[in-house]
Amino acid sequence: MLNFAKSADGLLPAIAQDYETREVLMLAYINELSWQKTLETGTAHYWSRSRQKLWLKGESSGHVQKIHDILVDCDEDTVIFLVEQVGGAACHTGHRSCFHRKVQGSELITEGEKLFDPEMVYGKK
Amino acid sequence: MLNFAKSADGLLPAIAQDYETREVLMLAYINELSWQKTLETGTAHYWSRSRQKLWLKGESSGHVQKIHDILVDCDEDTVIFLVEQVGGAACHTGHRSCFHRKVQGSELITEGEKLFDPEMVYGKK
Repeated sequence: MLNFAKSADGLLPAIAQDYETREVLMLAYINELSWQKTLETGTAHYWSRSRQKLWLKGESSGHVQKIHDILVDCDEDTVIFLVEQVGGAACHTGHRSCFHRKVQGSELITEGEKLFDPEMVYGKK
Repeated sequence: MLNFAKSADGLLPAIAQDYETREVLMLAYINELSWQKTLETGTAHYWSRSRQKLWLKGESSGHVQKIHDILVDCDEDTVIFLVEQVGGAACHTGHRSCFHRKVQGSELITEGEKLFDPEMVYGKK
């Protein structure tokens, strides 16, 4: 159903989008294993490129993403997870969306408030 | 503003999303050149991985994407182009969105009608 062979590293981009508002919450990568885990559990699983391991989104914060629908593109090399974002925020910064900054000239302007304090959720680092 | 060095091939994913309905239309890749062209012209430019060249979306079909806003993610390695899709359809199949198929069990179910006939737009191949 997906063409994992298309990318050199076996990873394909997965867009998480709010199933109601259609806001794009984040983009992460999936491999065959995280794709199977997502289908089996109905909860978004990605492949962490930094940690090189299977990543259940929300495993630390509890802010998991419940899958409502999955869309596949024409080339079968990108998917959209239409999700319910538990806890309201997808971004590790506490913002609802990872895309909370807008280009304005040569600046990036932050929009929207933080829904949680990262230190409270992940602990001080 | 973007961290092109983060990917081995210098390409970052760009999500094209309808600026009004927030429907995700397509995902393609940008390099530094296509990013600069997009900012300069206000029209979405990508990097074609198959043709290995700068790709003005709509250069064949006339179905260009006018940029309304650009969002940047927390890692500065993915962007969203909020666009007005001229001609109504972003997908080379004639569908509005490249993501016109939904996972249903082990099947992919096509949703929505074609807005144009690819043969009329691109010619027979």
